[in-house]
Amino acid sequence: MRCTEEQREYLSLARDFADNEMAPKMLEASWDEHEALPVDVLQKAAALGFGGVYVSEDVGGTGLGRLETSVIFEALATGCVSTTAYISIHNMCAWMIDTFGNEEQRRHYLPSLVSMKTLASYCLTEPGAGSDAASLATTAVRKGDHYILNGSKAFISGGGHSDVYVIMARTGGAGPKGISAFIVEKDAPGLSFGKKERKVGWNSQPTRAVIMEDCQVPARNLLGAEGQGFQFAMKGLDGGRVNIASCSLGAAQASLEAALEHTRVRKQFNTSLNQFQYTQFEMAEMAANLNASRLMVREAARLLDEQSPMATSYCAMAKLFATDQCFKICNQALQLHGGYGYLKDYPVQQWMRDSRVHQILEGTNEIMRMIVARELVRLE
Amino acid sequence: MRCTEEQREYLSLARDFADNEMAPKMLEASWDEHEALPVDVLQKAAALGFGGVYVSEDVGGTGLGRLETSVIFEALATGCVSTTAYISIHNMCAWMIDTFGNEEQRRHYLPSLVSMKTLASYCLTEPGAGSDAASLATTAVRKGDHYILNGSKAFISGGGHSDVYVIMARTGGAGPKGISAFIVEKDAPGLSFGKKERKVGWNSQPTRAVIMEDCQVPARNLLGAEGQGFQFAMKGLDGGRVNIASCSLGAAQASLEAALEHTRVRKQFNTSLNQFQYTQFEMAEMAANLNASRLMVREAARLLDEQSPMATSYCAMAKLFATDQCFKICNQALQLHGGYGYLKDYPVQQWMRDSRVHQILEGTNEIMRMIVARELVRLE
Amino acid sequence: MRCTEEQREYLSLARDFADNEMAPKMLEASWDEHEALPVDVLQKAAALGFGGVYVSEDVGGTGLGRLETSVIFEALATGCVSTTAYISIHNMCAWMIDTFGNEEQRRHYLPSLVSMKTLASYCLTEPGAGSDAASLATTAVRKGDHYILNGSKAFISGGGHSDVYVIMARTGGAGPKGISAFIVEKDAPGLSFGKKERKVGWNSQPTRAVIMEDCQVPARNLLGAEGQGFQFAMKGLDGGRVNIASCSLGAAQASLEAALEHTRVRKQFNTSLNQFQYTQFEMAEMAANLNASRLMVREAARLLDEQSPMATSYCAMAKLFATDQCFKICNQALQLHGGYGYLKDYPVQQWMRDSRVHQILEGTNEIMRMIVARELVRLE
Amino acid sequence: MRCTEEQREYLSLARDFADNEMAPKMLEASWDEHEALPVDVLQKAAALGFGGVYVSEDVGGTGLGRLETSVIFEALATGCVSTTAYISIHNMCAWMIDTFGNEEQRRHYLPSLVSMKTLASYCLTEPGAGSDAASLATTAVRKGDHYILNGSKAFISGGGHSDVYVIMARTGGAGPKGISAFIVEKDAPGLSFGKKERKVGWNSQPTRAVIMEDCQVPARNLLGAEGQGFQFAMKGLDGGRVNIASCSLGAAQASLEAALEHTRVRKQFNTSLNQFQYTQFEMAEMAANLNASRLMVREAARLLDEQSPMATSYCAMAKLFATDQCFKICNQALQLHGGYGYLKDYPVQQWMRDSRVHQILEGTNEIMRMIVARELVRLE
Repeated sequence: MRCTEEQREYLSLARDFADNEMAPKMLEASWDEHEALPVDVLQKAAALGFGGVYVSEDVGGTGLGRLETSVIFEALATGCVSTTAYISIHNMCAWMIDTFGNEEQRRHYLPSLVSMKTLASYCLTEPGAGSDAASLATTAVRKGDHYILNGSKAFISGGGHSDVYVIMARTGGAGPKGISAFIVEKDAPGLSFGKKERKVGWNSQPTRAVIMEDCQVPARNLLGAEGQGFQFAMKGLDGGRVNIASCSLGAAQASLEAALEHTRVRKQFNTSLNQFQYTQFEMAEMAANLNASRLMVREAARLLDEQSPMATSYCAMAKLFATDQCFKICNQALQLHGGYGYLKDYPVQQWMRDSRVHQILEGTNEIMRMIVARELVRLE
Repeated sequence: MRCTEEQREYLSLARDFADNEMAPKMLEASWDEHEALPVDVLQKAAALGFGGVYVSEDVGGTGLGRLETSVIFEALATGCVSTTAYISIHNMCAWMIDTFGNEEQRRHYLPSLVSMKTLASYCLTEPGAGSDAASLATTAVRKGDHYILNGSKAFISGGGHSDVYVIMARTGGAGPKGISAFIVEKDAPGLSFGKKERKVGWNSQPTRAVIMEDCQVPARNLLGAEGQGFQFAMKGLDGGRVNIASCSLGAAQASLEAALEHTRVRKQFNTSLNQFQYTQFEMAEMAANLNASRLMVREAARLLDEQSPMATSYCAMAKLFATDQCFKICNQALQLHGGYGYLKDYPVQQWMRDSRVHQILEGTNEIMRMIVARELVRLE
Repeated sequence: MRCTEEQREYLSLARDFADNEMAPKMLEASWDEHEALPVDVLQKAAALGFGGVYVSEDVGGTGLGRLETSVIFEALATGCVSTTAYISIHNMCAWMIDTFGNEEQRRHYLPSLVSMKTLASYCLTEPGAGSDAASLATTAVRKGDHYILNGSKAFISGGGHSDVYVIMARTGGAGPKGISAFIVEKDAPGLSFGKKERKVGWNSQPTRAVIMEDCQVPARNLLGAEGQGFQFAMKGLDGGRVNIASCSLGAAQASLEAALEHTRVRKQFNTSLNQFQYTQFEMAEMAANLNASRLMVREAARLLDEQSPMATSYCAMAKLFATDQCFKICNQALQLHGGYGYLKDYPVQQWMRDSRVHQILEGTNEIMRMIVARELVRLE
Repeated sequence: MRCTEEQREYLSLARDFADNEMAPKMLEASWDEHEALPVDVLQKAAALGFGGVYVSEDVGGTGLGRLETSVIFEALATGCVSTTAYISIHNMCAWMIDTFGNEEQRRHYLPSLVSMKTLASYCLTEPGAGSDAASLATTAVRKGDHYILNGSKAFISGGGHSDVYVIMARTGGAGPKGISAFIVEKDAPGLSFGKKERKVGWNSQPTRAVIMEDCQVPARNLLGAEGQGFQFAMKGLDGGRVNIASCSLGAAQASLEAALEHTRVRKQFNTSLNQFQYTQFEMAEMAANLNASRLMVREAARLLDEQSPMATSYCAMAKLFATDQCFKICNQALQLHGGYGYLKDYPVQQWMRDSRVHQILEGTNEIMRMIVARELVRLE
């Protein structure tokens, strides 16, 4: 994909940060094994403008488009997929407040979010409402100048650690139009968190249930108007899917680089592995599929930037295609490492484990197929 | 892929032509069954500028770039893959004469080629030199003001029908640097043709061996200098691969459209087929893979336009990816037609048969992997 | 798969017949191109016992089990897939008459069927009832000592050529229990045939619609009792699916053998193709997948022989797996032939074209998934 | 696969043990997380005859064939893949001593091995000799009544924990014929172990390098004669591959069962997941591929039992096919669990992680393709 000069600069900045500040620490400090969110690294990233990449400049955001955002998150993810994915969710929340919030909300929350002094989590999924998000059961009832929230949210990235939670809850009737979005602070009365989930990957960020028992939220923390929450959540996810797919690109890019290096250095039968035809053909296929994935993701980002009516469908298609293909690339790279690929001393297995969840979250890839099919069948 | 206004116009022009002048005639006149090259349709296409899409305007060419060319060939191929593929090969030959020929050659051959009053064939492959093209055995020996050619070329599209043959032959030592390119006219003494090959598809164009027995070619018909032929042939093929991949895009696009229409109309279990989840998910996957293919092809075309050093590798990657995926899409569309998909009354089977050979010709997809791998391993 | 001595003998008999009486004639006499059913070859095959392989011996059948039948049809199909598939359908019809017919019907029809002096066709599918076979609309109304049939059947192998048609028609209410089976002779008043379908493959056998307009069928030609027809049809299909899958095994076996031979003989880059690692790995994969397919088919045949309650599900699973994998193997073998694979002079393309329809007929592979899933979900 | 009565009994015994003694403890005691070899469970398994399934009865072995062994290891692996894989390697070592050892060795080592009071490890792979095992560099030099071993072995399952090591070392010249096999006890002078490897899965068993620095091994511990070691190692691996593939069958079987259960219970859009067509079709495909895998593994086991000359090739084919397909099945099952599939509270992710390494060890699946191809190309 041809980059503009500006994109190239951000790419270079992000890749350098990934190479120097993330990749080595990920391994040395065992972010995966110790399951520790590297807050200092997040704040360094934010200092470069990565805490609010597509947040407006007046509140400290970097003010870039989605295309640049995709380039940046891909580059960062070569350093640590899990940490970058967390940054990308944080960005999505910040963007929602920037776009749908009022001036007071924007001024109050965004400056510390874009510097990552405070962190944000996105709370849509519930134990009983995963793929069918619009059926969510969490309620928000207005009582004086507060809303009282009851219910629980599952699989929340940053849950229990983040300072700010963007929570979708039902203020009206059944279906998507009864849903509103709230900004909830960590110390809100009645807010608590489940145990830290043990996961296959994405271990540098904590995942917990978020539990609301008569949780009091000031009425001024309603985002937009009542009933607009589901629409906000879906708009956030369009970009979120491009971001997550970009993280998969980074995982696949790093995996391909590792495979190229390993097969260059490692010899069997007195021959560098990269001289075997099968190895070469595998890597050619990996490169082709990675390139196709990248083009799909960038195209979707561009359509988002243009506010195209096709954007939702193309974001879904890009997320489906890129997260499936990139997982496969990571897994092929693991195989090309032989036994070493299975050891935690080598990062390729972590790229595979981390990127596996991208096929599941922010809408499973089955939901992505539903979104794409809906458009195809409708157009017909 | 975002199109410019000009691209959109050519797309629309070409698609209209495909819809009105090609698709219905392909079926009614049974181009496939009767194995007849529809010369009148070719000339109508040429009248719209498709006989020399990327040939210079001073000799009557349309003077477009590779990106527009790709858009046009994709659109035409929705009308007939085989016929469009033939047009694309003709274009490649015309481009070679335009680019590597001298003024006399350009003035002499191109005006009638771009109007498709005369047709051209590309002659590289030999019975004993397929994937290993540089080992070709056809010889060309200078004798006075002629070259005497001996050898034979296999699988020549348009062989026996075309008026002009761009033939690669060995004037020097072994290897690629001993090869030169010649413009040979159909009535050259010593030029003859094999039997018409019976093929799985690509039947609207004849395929024959081209046989040279002391074939006399005027020395002025040497293209460029001695020893440059292989390089010319490879440069032609970079574009040829993008063209053929574009024809696969057309086959897949038409197949997806046909599947959408068939599954909308056809009912089973009292339900339109397009309401079954599996059908929807298949079509979503087809759409995603088609879009990825298209982006790959356009990207390669763009790099060709920019004369990027990466062009050869990206053209190979695009051809590999797009021809593999698009064949799969045609085949999935056939399956979605049930028993009807297997009948020659329905075009989907022809798109599948026609596009199958794109995985083999202009370098097999195994050779594409070699080209891509060579670049990957070298860079490393 | 370990064979018994008897199985090995039949295998050898059938393979010899395929090698000597079918394969060479298929190519020389161009059965595919001329679309001619080679009746003389069918009768020679019948003389060896292949006209009624699993028909009882008292009416001239060979009286073998389904496992031997599978071995035989696989071996025959290496000679000509399309012709063998036709034989297999004929066998299925003869078996239905043998199993569900009364003594009079058995004595009347089977001796000439097993010798293939007369040929039989299976008529279930209708234009509006493909996958949803139980919704068929053809009616049969009792009138005196005749039934009057009205309706039409689509995609009938042998239609217009066969002497005997086993036709499923509705004598009762909606659903499968209203369906009966009839033996209808070619010259029955009111029976006619559509135009010969032009197909991608399966060309050595004619396919036509079978049309009934007040078609008179003697009441004595009812098979079993009224209302049993759908059940008979499904039982026939269990075996039919194993047979068709066996034909796919033959196509894949022949394709693998051709690929091994071609890659042994053909050289590129001064090396036999079979010395390239990628070629070797492809063929290893093909061999593994063929072996898996074979084991699946034999297992299903064995369960049929044992009248296992699991047979229907395992037959569906075997048909799904084997016809998908074997098509892929034929297609890979075609690719390994390079340009030659696309020419009709080489049989590999015909194995690919012929076996393609096995993924569609006797229940599409989507229907096979439904049958398997129904059992899985029910058991749960 | 039809089982004999005896096989059914062992299957039932093993599955009960897996259900009651392994599966619950694996989760509760977190064998994966705590990386603890459950020695008590191993000894209970041994008490049922699983410590020397195909070891002779005179030394306490169970004396079964490979087919029964495969049935047993599949069943056990539904309880814990990693632990069963360890048992299978222990069995392979015990079988090598039983088959190639002399009476003294058999009497001395096997009784405690089959009861798993002592445990055994297989030591072939070296850091520089993975796929190219015959190039191993560990040396064994005879010095009086000892051999002095120098070198190191990599990726040794049970390394540092096992009591007995079957070590391949070079006593002669280059190549496979210079290799001998030794029984080395844990406390042999000069034997030490590397750090415990951190792995993606297979965590209930420790993996360490085994290091020999002037390691003294009594000459009586040579297995067979000098120069026979590589042949012994390869014969062991034929069975080892069937065993490992059987463990993959268990992982896939358990994963399919879990997917069936989860999709039955879990609802979205007010519908049980198992009522969605895509879900059903996925599970049908998983069931078909699992069944094909099982048939391949059992067939290979049967050929081993018959000491067929085809056994090596069929064992390789079975390992290639089954470990690839079963990993895919586990991964599909994970996806069908949605977000839950990624959590360590659900075992499906562990089956996926554990079975991943089966595509790599006991010969990578690339080496399996080489073995199969060698036979194919040779036969041709």
